[in-house]
Amino acid sequence: VFLALPHGLAAEYAIPFVKGGLKVIDISADFRLKSTEKYKFYYKKNHPAPEMLETAVYGLPELRRSDIAEASLIACPGCYPTSILLPSIPLLKNGLVSSEGIIASSMSGVTGAGRKVDSPYIFPECNESLRAYAPAGHRHLPEIEQELAFAVGRKEVKMNFVPHLVPVNRGINSTLFFNMEPGCSVEKIEEAYREAYSREYFARVLKAGRMPDTKNVTMTNFCEMGFSCDEHTGKVIVAGTVDNLTKGASGQAVQCMNIIFGIEESEGLI
Amino acid sequence: VFLALPHGLAAEYAIPFVKGGLKVIDISADFRLKSTEKYKFYYKKNHPAPEMLETAVYGLPELRRSDIAEASLIACPGCYPTSILLPSIPLLKNGLVSSEGIIASSMSGVTGAGRKVDSPYIFPECNESLRAYAPAGHRHLPEIEQELAFAVGRKEVKMNFVPHLVPVNRGINSTLFFNMEPGCSVEKIEEAYREAYSREYFARVLKAGRMPDTKNVTMTNFCEMGFSCDEHTGKVIVAGTVDNLTKGASGQAVQCMNIIFGIEESEGLI
Amino acid sequence: VFLALPHGLAAEYAIPFVKGGLKVIDISADFRLKSTEKYKFYYKKNHPAPEMLETAVYGLPELRRSDIAEASLIACPGCYPTSILLPSIPLLKNGLVSSEGIIASSMSGVTGAGRKVDSPYIFPECNESLRAYAPAGHRHLPEIEQELAFAVGRKEVKMNFVPHLVPVNRGINSTLFFNMEPGCSVEKIEEAYREAYSREYFARVLKAGRMPDTKNVTMTNFCEMGFSCDEHTGKVIVAGTVDNLTKGASGQAVQCMNIIFGIEESEGLI
Amino acid sequence: VFLALPHGLAAEYAIPFVKGGLKVIDISADFRLKSTEKYKFYYKKNHPAPEMLETAVYGLPELRRSDIAEASLIACPGCYPTSILLPSIPLLKNGLVSSEGIIASSMSGVTGAGRKVDSPYIFPECNESLRAYAPAGHRHLPEIEQELAFAVGRKEVKMNFVPHLVPVNRGINSTLFFNMEPGCSVEKIEEAYREAYSREYFARVLKAGRMPDTKNVTMTNFCEMGFSCDEHTGKVIVAGTVDNLTKGASGQAVQCMNIIFGIEESEGLI
Repeated sequence: VFLALPHGLAAEYAIPFVKGGLKVIDISADFRLKSTEKYKFYYKKNHPAPEMLETAVYGLPELRRSDIAEASLIACPGCYPTSILLPSIPLLKNGLVSSEGIIASSMSGVTGAGRKVDSPYIFPECNESLRAYAPAGHRHLPEIEQELAFAVGRKEVKMNFVPHLVPVNRGINSTLFFNMEPGCSVEKIEEAYREAYSREYFARVLKAGRMPDTKNVTMTNFCEMGFSCDEHTGKVIVAGTVDNLTKGASGQAVQCMNIIFGIEESEGLI
Repeated sequence: VFLALPHGLAAEYAIPFVKGGLKVIDISADFRLKSTEKYKFYYKKNHPAPEMLETAVYGLPELRRSDIAEASLIACPGCYPTSILLPSIPLLKNGLVSSEGIIASSMSGVTGAGRKVDSPYIFPECNESLRAYAPAGHRHLPEIEQELAFAVGRKEVKMNFVPHLVPVNRGINSTLFFNMEPGCSVEKIEEAYREAYSREYFARVLKAGRMPDTKNVTMTNFCEMGFSCDEHTGKVIVAGTVDNLTKGASGQAVQCMNIIFGIEESEGLI
Repeated sequence: VFLALPHGLAAEYAIPFVKGGLKVIDISADFRLKSTEKYKFYYKKNHPAPEMLETAVYGLPELRRSDIAEASLIACPGCYPTSILLPSIPLLKNGLVSSEGIIASSMSGVTGAGRKVDSPYIFPECNESLRAYAPAGHRHLPEIEQELAFAVGRKEVKMNFVPHLVPVNRGINSTLFFNMEPGCSVEKIEEAYREAYSREYFARVLKAGRMPDTKNVTMTNFCEMGFSCDEHTGKVIVAGTVDNLTKGASGQAVQCMNIIFGIEESEGLI
Repeated sequence: VFLALPHGLAAEYAIPFVKGGLKVIDISADFRLKSTEKYKFYYKKNHPAPEMLETAVYGLPELRRSDIAEASLIACPGCYPTSILLPSIPLLKNGLVSSEGIIASSMSGVTGAGRKVDSPYIFPECNESLRAYAPAGHRHLPEIEQELAFAVGRKEVKMNFVPHLVPVNRGINSTLFFNMEPGCSVEKIEEAYREAYSREYFARVLKAGRMPDTKNVTMTNFCEMGFSCDEHTGKVIVAGTVDNLTKGASGQAVQCMNIIFGIEESEGLI
């Protein structure tokens, strides 16, 4: 049984279902974090079901497919984390980049705020406007750091994440800056991505030096990534693009459901 | 005598004028760099007048007003460098942030490419599109690094600069990431900016924690800046916004001319 | 056998196929007009295959389904004619409006010009710009007049059609002005539309007084229509919206192919 | 003394000022209509000061300069009427076109709705959207008809006016359709416009056959017009463009103030 629950009330509704033996796919933020302290810090309230946090699986299919298949409670990540985690994890897991000093500079279309009717979101305020917001402490930051930490053996990861609001309807681009580790090279990065994503339907990596464009992923469930190595500073610059209204929580939820049911993962998504 | 010269041929034309005793304000890239090696590396040709590089003054009025007043050859910076240098210099000069590991993530409207008629710039390719480009080695990088180096006593500065193309006509936002030095605080940063810009007509700094929006500077010669300190990572996040068609080379050139003539600096610009 | 042919060369290529007994679905303008004089006047050359014009069927499925099913040569209309003909024909056929003094004021997204790389189509020229073009004598006019004439018993129809270029990627809205005939009423119009389109998958008519929005049809093969009666002037105002990249020639071609093959008409289109 | 008053309360505030001998420039709709019946019909309330309607002067400087100079109460027209009246009046006054069957199809940027915070105006609802609204009975219609009637000797004028909302910040284009009267020609139209506007600072007429683009007037107080004669249907197609935030009520109010004070009409407007 599949159940997509709205933010906030999600935990409350999910508890009886999970206890009753149903499988729950949650698209709210309630079960993404493992730490009740971080939940309290970022969401300003006590977590309503701390005992369920350990069983919840972070629902990013490209990284947790086998866990998702078995899970009773799946917490699907939203759009910003997806655009950051997919291009980051293979580099960290393979030790090609450092987990220190990571920086994510993201841009999002206005539907990232849902259909919020508020003055910053009316057309004349957004059109012909570019602006950073929430430069420190965005709510998506702790789940990104948590998942990056898992990729490096649970060593703590602290990073910067600055989102920007830009005048498109749909689409997120996250540009990431990593410090290269010794031995890192274009070929090693290509190999890491190939290993991670060559068999993934919804993850595409461009050839070295080419950066992705959100218009190639909008209206789809794809994540397109690109990277470039900068000898000058010893950084790898990586960009990940997704359609925030698809390969955010909702498209991911359908993908998870397909995995649970053992059917074609792209069913209903292409 | 005022002379605005186009890119490329600028040096050739400027030489006889300067030698003849005229004052030249150049909006091309020909006299911005002090290093002929860097000129050759980034512009792929030998510099046609290396002997004039030392006398040329980098025409950013807020930082070089007295030099500009006396100069015979002024090289006005373009839009990206302006949006990065104005918010950076006061922090570096006052030792509040490190000159190592600086990262600039910029977004520019499509007029940043001039009126270039090429397929990446037609409306359907730009509208509803977000993309990083030239993630390493953009031509504006060496002049930014050069000017930042001057701010820290000519110590070499190497940084990352990644521009992005976004669907607005005008406007640049540069979001910058700096490592805080010991002793850096919100108050110290406010003080540094106040000292640098409180008497500047065209430089505006928002109060701590507020980030600027390009729509507040488009169609003007203003640079609006904001900053936020992130305790979590020890970074200062700074954003600078300008209208690329004004407070790029052209508005700057008018401002420089006003300084040379000793008239109101805002003449013709408001 | 299905064959989609580009503009210009279409007639030349189509002739041998049709003569060889194949069914041709043409998305160029070559077989839309019945009159070789009008073809010459609007396309500035002699028609290469006048003998085939009578057999060609105008491929607008909602109006010519049975003819399309039998045809050997189908000429699919483009986006402007579709947005105008679908809302017009039921009113004219039922004598509710006059065939004299019809006016069509249309707006089109920039992809209406294809991927043309020319200065009027670069982003800075289109964004924040609204402009009429080809106010008299647009090439799509004669086929619109021809099809409206068929709807009123081949009486000649002369109308105005003024297209406008507006800064969206996709979408056409045509607003039409008709003189009401005696006996015309909101109810009669509703009845005419119901009769014409209640069983049509891709044609939707809004309730009286509500006007359509292109964003509800973009990325689809639907045509959405609305109307309003103006007692003050005795006019009916009608608007038709389509996605120019779908329910223009290409979506129509797929729909025609489905009809020929006797399969579900929406196959491949939803 | 100059006073710009907001919509609604304007009449109430203006009365004592006018009675006290001050000159009032009103940018609300309260004194635009001469007919209290039409005011009641379109604004749904009784007019609060019917005795002042006859003295009020319609504040369109290009058409009423001498009246404005003497007036004690000036009612500045908004953006739609300005974009329609300026291109229409010279044609009607010179008998070149009929006052019957006039049609205006207008497009407006979203700031035409002010800074209204409501769901139809949020970015994702407006961006990539084209829609007609208020196809019959828009509040600006009666003042347009009234002023056109004055141009033809107070004969009643009934016309259609359909506005459309399009995704730009600023700018209005009104495309108008007129029936040509016998004797009308391109030369006669050019002469009529030349006579009306060749000495007007803020009115520009393009040469025959060229249509205006809103981007050439946005951020200015100019009205740019173009026309084309269509022999095929006997219509003249005319387009007028203005910046709705300038050459609507507010820019007009400044222009009127300059006239009253006898100073340069463009003062504060260029």
